[in-house]
Amino acid sequence: MDISSFVTSLATSFVIFVVLMILFSWLSKSQGNEVIYYPNRILRGLDPVEGRARTRNPFAWIKEAWGASESDVIEAAGVDAAVYLLFLSSVLAILVFSGLILLPILLPLAGTDHGLQQANNNSSSNDDDNNNNHGNFTRLDKLAMGNIQEGSPRLWAFLLGTYWVSFVTFSVLWRAYKHASDLRATAKALPEAKPEDFAILVRDIPNPPKDQTRKEQVDNYFRALHPDTFYKSIVVTNNKEADKIWEELEGYKKKLARAEVLFSESKTARKPEGTRPTNRIGFLGLIGKKVETIEYCNEKISELLPKLEAEQERTLGQKQQNAAFVFFNSRQAAILAAQTLHSQIVDTWTITEAPEPRQVLWPNLSRKFYERKIRQYIVYGTVFLTIVFYMIPIGLISAVTTLDNLRKSIPFLKVIVDNSAIKTVLQAYLPQLALILFLAFLPSFLMVLSKAEGIPSVSHAIRAASGKYFYFIVFNVFLGVTITGTLFSSLKTIINHPSGIVSMLAKGLPINATFFLTYVALKFFIGYGLELSRLVPLIMFHMKKKYLCKTEDEIKEAWAPGDLSFATRVPNDMLVVTIALCYSVIAPLIIPFGAIYLGLGWLIARNQALKVYVPSYESYGRMWPHMHTRIIAALILYQITMFGYIALKEFIYAPLILPVIAISFIFAYVCKQRFYRAFACTPLEVACQDTKEVPNLESVYNAYIPDSLKPEKLEDFEYFEDAQSQVSRSTSF
Amino acid sequence: MDISSFVTSLATSFVIFVVLMILFSWLSKSQGNEVIYYPNRILRGLDPVEGRARTRNPFAWIKEAWGASESDVIEAAGVDAAVYLLFLSSVLAILVFSGLILLPILLPLAGTDHGLQQANNNSSSNDDDNNNNHGNFTRLDKLAMGNIQEGSPRLWAFLLGTYWVSFVTFSVLWRAYKHASDLRATAKALPEAKPEDFAILVRDIPNPPKDQTRKEQVDNYFRALHPDTFYKSIVVTNNKEADKIWEELEGYKKKLARAEVLFSESKTARKPEGTRPTNRIGFLGLIGKKVETIEYCNEKISELLPKLEAEQERTLGQKQQNAAFVFFNSRQAAILAAQTLHSQIVDTWTITEAPEPRQVLWPNLSRKFYERKIRQYIVYGTVFLTIVFYMIPIGLISAVTTLDNLRKSIPFLKVIVDNSAIKTVLQAYLPQLALILFLAFLPSFLMVLSKAEGIPSVSHAIRAASGKYFYFIVFNVFLGVTITGTLFSSLKTIINHPSGIVSMLAKGLPINATFFLTYVALKFFIGYGLELSRLVPLIMFHMKKKYLCKTEDEIKEAWAPGDLSFATRVPNDMLVVTIALCYSVIAPLIIPFGAIYLGLGWLIARNQALKVYVPSYESYGRMWPHMHTRIIAALILYQITMFGYIALKEFIYAPLILPVIAISFIFAYVCKQRFYRAFACTPLEVACQDTKEVPNLESVYNAYIPDSLKPEKLEDFEYFEDAQSQVSRSTSF
Repeated sequence: MDISSFVTSLATSFVIFVVLMILFSWLSKSQGNEVIYYPNRILRGLDPVEGRARTRNPFAWIKEAWGASESDVIEAAGVDAAVYLLFLSSVLAILVFSGLILLPILLPLAGTDHGLQQANNNSSSNDDDNNNNHGNFTRLDKLAMGNIQEGSPRLWAFLLGTYWVSFVTFSVLWRAYKHASDLRATAKALPEAKPEDFAILVRDIPNPPKDQTRKEQVDNYFRALHPDTFYKSIVVTNNKEADKIWEELEGYKKKLARAEVLFSESKTARKPEGTRPTNRIGFLGLIGKKVETIEYCNEKISELLPKLEAEQERTLGQKQQNAAFVFFNSRQAAILAAQTLHSQIVDTWTITEAPEPRQVLWPNLSRKFYERKIRQYIVYGTVFLTIVFYMIPIGLISAVTTLDNLRKSIPFLKVIVDNSAIKTVLQAYLPQLALILFLAFLPSFLMVLSKAEGIPSVSHAIRAASGKYFYFIVFNVFLGVTITGTLFSSLKTIINHPSGIVSMLAKGLPINATFFLTYVALKFFIGYGLELSRLVPLIMFHMKKKYLCKTEDEIKEAWAPGDLSFATRVPNDMLVVTIALCYSVIAPLIIPFGAIYLGLGWLIARNQALKVYVPSYESYGRMWPHMHTRIIAALILYQITMFGYIALKEFIYAPLILPVIAISFIFAYVCKQRFYRAFACTPLEVACQDTKEVPNLESVYNAYIPDSLKPEKLEDFEYFEDAQSQVSRSTSF
Repeated sequence: MDISSFVTSLATSFVIFVVLMILFSWLSKSQGNEVIYYPNRILRGLDPVEGRARTRNPFAWIKEAWGASESDVIEAAGVDAAVYLLFLSSVLAILVFSGLILLPILLPLAGTDHGLQQANNNSSSNDDDNNNNHGNFTRLDKLAMGNIQEGSPRLWAFLLGTYWVSFVTFSVLWRAYKHASDLRATAKALPEAKPEDFAILVRDIPNPPKDQTRKEQVDNYFRALHPDTFYKSIVVTNNKEADKIWEELEGYKKKLARAEVLFSESKTARKPEGTRPTNRIGFLGLIGKKVETIEYCNEKISELLPKLEAEQERTLGQKQQNAAFVFFNSRQAAILAAQTLHSQIVDTWTITEAPEPRQVLWPNLSRKFYERKIRQYIVYGTVFLTIVFYMIPIGLISAVTTLDNLRKSIPFLKVIVDNSAIKTVLQAYLPQLALILFLAFLPSFLMVLSKAEGIPSVSHAIRAASGKYFYFIVFNVFLGVTITGTLFSSLKTIINHPSGIVSMLAKGLPINATFFLTYVALKFFIGYGLELSRLVPLIMFHMKKKYLCKTEDEIKEAWAPGDLSFATRVPNDMLVVTIALCYSVIAPLIIPFGAIYLGLGWLIARNQALKVYVPSYESYGRMWPHMHTRIIAALILYQITMFGYIALKEFIYAPLILPVIAISFIFAYVCKQRFYRAFACTPLEVACQDTKEVPNLESVYNAYIPDSLKPEKLEDFEYFEDAQSQVSRSTSF
């Protein structure tokens, strides 16, 4: 890619970004758009604009995002958002501190050398008919490590640069891990008790003895082992049928509300009796008998209600499964129980801390121990195949990446391609655009796979999906683009000489530097512009509001902002981090771009966390260890690449990079030893920090009853009565 | 090795064994030898012979060992001995069930084929001057798989034999693991409470705040986290000085007792005033001033007593270290605490179940977290180097193994070697004897290394040492002897083609079949004969009794039997198991020898456990998972070898062995998931099975006070008063 197309790419991106920014500051002032730009504040019952109206400054949001404290973020969007911001600020800090030293030293060193010129001369003289080669490098390429001559002592600076980046990373990550750990502990130790603090999740319960129900079995087991602290239990049931009826019921209720609004709207002055809305009861409301909606819905509801109650009773009585939530009368007791091995046969009565009620994946709870393991391995296998299988299309994209190739293979494009303006734009965007579109398919597929593993909570499934996405992205986008050209032709060589992959990486990386530079630029300007301006949700909302929504609930649903969706956000940022780290010394020019991407990302994520998104779960920063490990993995990938690249430059001191790789592993090990377990389970120290007044345990218990099983009145059902009678027995015990 | 030297070896071994057996039954009848042959019974206060005197049958011990129940063994020697016997009986069962099918099928198949003859003819005709080769195989070799022709369909039987052995192993091991787990649970759930049930070991305690002593810090921390169940704590102190003084004191006390006996013995009728014993106080009692022992010792004791007390006070007050034992008022509370993460900074306040008081390795308790890790890796490195370094001498032994080589290199041996009787004996024993002698050096070195890792308990150190010894033995003796010949010449090939090791193993194994056959035979006849007859301890005891011991205590010390010393016993048996498994199909003749070895071993170990050895610790069969894993490892080694060997035989269905290797890994995984954690920590279920009356917690607490710090009266020291006052405060808390 030559310098002009790079500048074009940058400039176009920037223009689009500016346009979107202006759109944002204009749109967000409008009263009707508040629910799109401040939904989080509205849902928390705050004044959405709060003194914003006074200022006309289009950059006021920046000041607000910058000025907010971390506790504001936690209050608005939870610890997970704060940890995500910590992740962004940490990698930003890594890039900034690295750049402060690397840019002023490495850029001049590279720019004043003549490696490329020399190599070019050599190859020209060696190979006379290869005159395409001439001028194949640009001013951008000259500022990279590729321009250093082989064996030059200047390589010392690049070698030491690798050390500098590594140690900056260690130092930043160490503080960040400590901070994340503190954030988690502080949030967990808050005196406001949450239901999950008092509960544990028990799975793999063996078959009950013949004379006991599942419920009795669970209660007896835990009452014997925790005589003083056991409170109650809920046996997980197979709610499929009940859920179905309940959803049907909810559907009719919504339909009814909508029909009533339609009916009251139709009562105009001219026609005071109004038109009773009707609908067809057949497929999609298009065919079948025409009925009056209000009567029909009422009839259906009164028909379904007793059906639901009967099904609830049957579910609670007969569909008990081999999992349960067990409640204790103190946080401390629940934590002690959650971390202690209960059964001598270890694959039965497996116990973990309970997930939040809102993020329980009910159908997974009853999956058996080895079923979960087998599912896990099948999913891993599928993901592995997906990663390998997707490599082929990505490889094709990378091969067709240059328009020259495209013109050759599809001749009728010649007309377009030969137009120089279009050509420049296309050349700047085509491969990147293909890549971005291509990646849009994947996340939901990976999420489905992760849930199929048998994971009990949404946040855990999201972590799992995020991990898969990360592997996919690094292997396919980064490694794929970098080494595909060589990979397919020399797969055989790689299998025979696995160490060859290092030199292949080292060879492939420099060539693609400008590709990734453009990729990052495109991603941040367009991506962030869309993110901030929320154009898509805005248009969707207004369309829905105008043509579809009738009731308040429907409107509220239309502007529901969703959450930060870490499953794709984190891996995408990780890709940029990986790229920026790997190129930091090879092509230091990437550092400012990476830093701008991450800085802007931090600012916008802060804005969105404070004002837009509503967290759908809270995992207290459980994602952090994964982010940490992946940053270290990227660092090690970078170090290995640098080793290969410096060795390729025939620099005999290249092995001096090996110690820093060992140090990286030791650093990762020490971090894991020191911090990890406090993320995997709750330390007792934290749970006991504020043993405030005991909360209403009944409400803790009720929080775990699924919607479809919630009775109108609690006393209605044998199940609950049964449970309560057992409590009174247990207290008199 | 030809058939005659094999028979000679067997016969000589057997004669020695019979002689030792007769010696045993004769010696064990003598009254004065009871303390050597029945020390366990004597120490348990039982009648040593118990109706033995009636029978003159020299095989009565067999009946007794056979007839004893498992609970007898547990009562006499603890769960560890029972689990060791379970290990022996399990591998015995594996060999017996394998042999039942393999011997009648594979031996005729091998014996009636002509692979060796053919190969020999081929090589003779190919290479005329190589006439040494002729007759290089014996009747023994003909009964092995080596005699099967290449690509013969008979190889199906050997392939299926591998499957049979594998599935027998799976089935036996599954039951055995379950049984071991039950043994452990039953013993742990006994209503008699042991001190370690109520204690946890806390290490890596951070520095105390300025205004608190270490003791206050520990008490405050645990009282806050376990307000209802915390009882007391003992901070680990640096007892080096106190231990030194205490040992000196004990030394003088012993000397005094001895001098008094000497003095009273010297009061004969002729000389009623007696001779007051004297000694010199210089180096080893050989030089220096001559003093009267009794006065001197009394003087020294009265001098040391206050010194000890002062040192005790100083130790308790000022030498507190960063580790502690914390006691709880119930078993259940201790287990809950032991398995729960306490501190948010995970590498501080690390908590484990407390080891038994008698097996605490005090100096290791205060080692810091990362110090332990570093020590561990250094020790692993040292062990690795040892294994590699020792390979060279073993390789030499294996090379010099044939007397022909020996005669060539050391000409003056010619005279001896040419005498055919001596030659046969030497040829039978020399290599094996060298090997056994060679291995005698190692165990104590490995034990020292294991203790240096920073392990807190003796049983854990013994497990660690046993693991190292196992690796040593398998790599050096088994793999070393098998592949050394080819190894050193082709080390380079192996590094380049790691898969070559499989075919190397497959080539090397059959050649050494008779070597190992003799090795096993020698080991069991001589080793077991010595073990049963206890000739060495007997002679030592009588010598000591006659010439050295004066006081009762000294005599008791002279016959103290020690324990079963699992650190060397288990790896040695594992070597035989590995050999027997690996040769089971290649040379099925090894199966009966292995079975006799293990059967006899089981019988003798039972006898020794019931009557001789006294367990020095109880780890409730914690060794079992290691034995289990190693048997599986041996099985997998065997399967890989079989794959290589069958493939070498140019049998195209050889890859059909690969699935069984995968099944072995799955089996190991499932066993680990199902049983392992109940060995690593105590399940709550087990601890709560019998919550009998609360024992005297004070005695639990006192059990953990080291000997050198035990005061004459408990109230004497501020330390204990302090602790007690804190208890009363905690109960009023």
